[in-house]
Amino acid sequence: MKKTYLVALVFALSCSSVAGYAAEKEDSLLKDAQAAFRPIPDKAPVIKNNEATQDKIELGKMLYFEPRLSKSSLISCNTCHNVGLGGADYQQTSTGHGWKRGPRNAPTVLNSVFNLAQFWDGRAMDLAEQAKGPIQAGVEMNNTPESVVKTLTSMPEYVALFKKAFPSQDNPVTFDNMAKAIEVFEATLITPDSKFDLFLKGNAQALNQEEKEGLKLFMQHGCVSCHSGINMGGDGYYELGVVKKPSDAILAGDKGRYTVTQTKNDEFSFKSPSLRNIELTPPYFHSGVIWDLEEAVSVMNDSQLGADLKAGDIGKIVVFLKATTGKQPQVLHPILPAPTNTTPKPSLD
Amino acid sequence: MKKTYLVALVFALSCSSVAGYAAEKEDSLLKDAQAAFRPIPDKAPVIKNNEATQDKIELGKMLYFEPRLSKSSLISCNTCHNVGLGGADYQQTSTGHGWKRGPRNAPTVLNSVFNLAQFWDGRAMDLAEQAKGPIQAGVEMNNTPESVVKTLTSMPEYVALFKKAFPSQDNPVTFDNMAKAIEVFEATLITPDSKFDLFLKGNAQALNQEEKEGLKLFMQHGCVSCHSGINMGGDGYYELGVVKKPSDAILAGDKGRYTVTQTKNDEFSFKSPSLRNIELTPPYFHSGVIWDLEEAVSVMNDSQLGADLKAGDIGKIVVFLKATTGKQPQVLHPILPAPTNTTPKPSLD
Repeated sequence: MKKTYLVALVFALSCSSVAGYAAEKEDSLLKDAQAAFRPIPDKAPVIKNNEATQDKIELGKMLYFEPRLSKSSLISCNTCHNVGLGGADYQQTSTGHGWKRGPRNAPTVLNSVFNLAQFWDGRAMDLAEQAKGPIQAGVEMNNTPESVVKTLTSMPEYVALFKKAFPSQDNPVTFDNMAKAIEVFEATLITPDSKFDLFLKGNAQALNQEEKEGLKLFMQHGCVSCHSGINMGGDGYYELGVVKKPSDAILAGDKGRYTVTQTKNDEFSFKSPSLRNIELTPPYFHSGVIWDLEEAVSVMNDSQLGADLKAGDIGKIVVFLKATTGKQPQVLHPILPAPTNTTPKPSLD
Repeated sequence: MKKTYLVALVFALSCSSVAGYAAEKEDSLLKDAQAAFRPIPDKAPVIKNNEATQDKIELGKMLYFEPRLSKSSLISCNTCHNVGLGGADYQQTSTGHGWKRGPRNAPTVLNSVFNLAQFWDGRAMDLAEQAKGPIQAGVEMNNTPESVVKTLTSMPEYVALFKKAFPSQDNPVTFDNMAKAIEVFEATLITPDSKFDLFLKGNAQALNQEEKEGLKLFMQHGCVSCHSGINMGGDGYYELGVVKKPSDAILAGDKGRYTVTQTKNDEFSFKSPSLRNIELTPPYFHSGVIWDLEEAVSVMNDSQLGADLKAGDIGKIVVFLKATTGKQPQVLHPILPAPTNTTPKPSLD
């Protein structure tokens, strides 16, 4: 055997061993990720006690885009949860009736069906319950259930669509059914097939090296503690400021989950937000005061992890987070029914 | 010949002659209508000096739905010209920045490409010029061209889309090009194939008897003088209150076209609005104070025609007007670009 050949062989063997080691590490990253997260499915999940017929989804879409559900006839669900803006509104906190500001940043509607509950403090059990809140909130749509039902009943097309969506009911045009229809439509607003989803489904090459490093840091340093599962968040309540209160990012006096449970332990706890599609929905936190995603990760590092992550590492985590942006929902804008003379007129007061 | 047979024959002949006479009258109604009106085409019309490529239309659609063109990042073209609400907003006069009310009722965007000019007073020559108005108006979107260009330039996706839409230009992200893209999108918002369009295309059965009677009254009593052509209006300026000032329907101090031309003759003149799809867009008139379509026709009767139309006739005209509601545009809601750290933040002030 010639010497050069021997050298080449040793080199080849060592390369193959390095490659094998790297592949093993890659495989372990994929397995770790699969243990911590789940991919967004291609189809809307089934909602308990609220069958998603096509008629009901279509009605829900109309209601979601219906500004006449608000007292001013100006504000619809889509105003603050814009399907074209990552399901949110690019506002610090949402602006509603009378140009008033709501108390907290609008969470995205996208994938919200996977959250354990709705609102930052989890005060609504599900999306149907959630939908009833902003319609009645004085700083949002400022309407009443009675007026909503009057509005819907005034338009024969809506009455017919409610009958189709709730065929077994004699008087289907109700505030509850409105909320149920909105819920099944919102459940369709999911974002599958991000690079991260393809990775979780077993395609180890779907993430590039930097994204993988970001994912590794995300898991190693504990971000995953509050942002795991299918939605990378939205599955529990966590105190904001475990290590240090992030004074720049919290809203003075907002005690979060405590306002729902009145339990000392829940003071300053919030439902962890989903980090999916996060690049689309600044500003961040319930306060909406941080606009820069790197800064948001940095605030989390200081207040929750105390991990002393370097700027480069934070950058890599942001690169990974951008790989969670999935296919955005394709929504054909609904054509809303013609009003009649009995449809309530808008009021700006 | 038996007597009964003779009677039957005479009866048959007279029937056939009545039918022939009726058919002739029908034919004459169709011919009269075809002389006064034209059907909405199936395809968007060509715009002079603004080629409608698919790339430009798609960009225009995004800009039309882009709330970040407003200072508050809350208001888009679609807010006041909602494609789901007949291209208007169901407001007396539009509500904009700071919850302020604009001076006049928002005209529909649908078929607006067929108007001789834009706005109630025709102060914008075309849709591109029109689009620049509300973006800068203090009571509407309250923004500046500089800030709009900064917003669009801050998002690499928009920069790339402008390059595709205006491939021959070195620096295509301009306020003018924004308006041109919006114009070609708006030109697609047309509503062909109403029953009236099918009638105009030669199908004499497309309108039922009551609708035909309404059409006949509409032409006989002179409504057609200001509401003819392809858009049943939008083709000239006419004094409001030729017979009698409709004090309930006008806005004190609004001199209409006069503010544009400073010509005495134009005082209290307005562009006649299109009556197509009119059932979808209450309230009516530049003032937006009349919500009931029958009442609107009645006001016109008193102030413009002095025709003393009876309630039944007005009802028939309304039935005819409802037959002008065409196929509403099918618009896939655009997915807007992710903002960056240099995208201007919303300001509610």
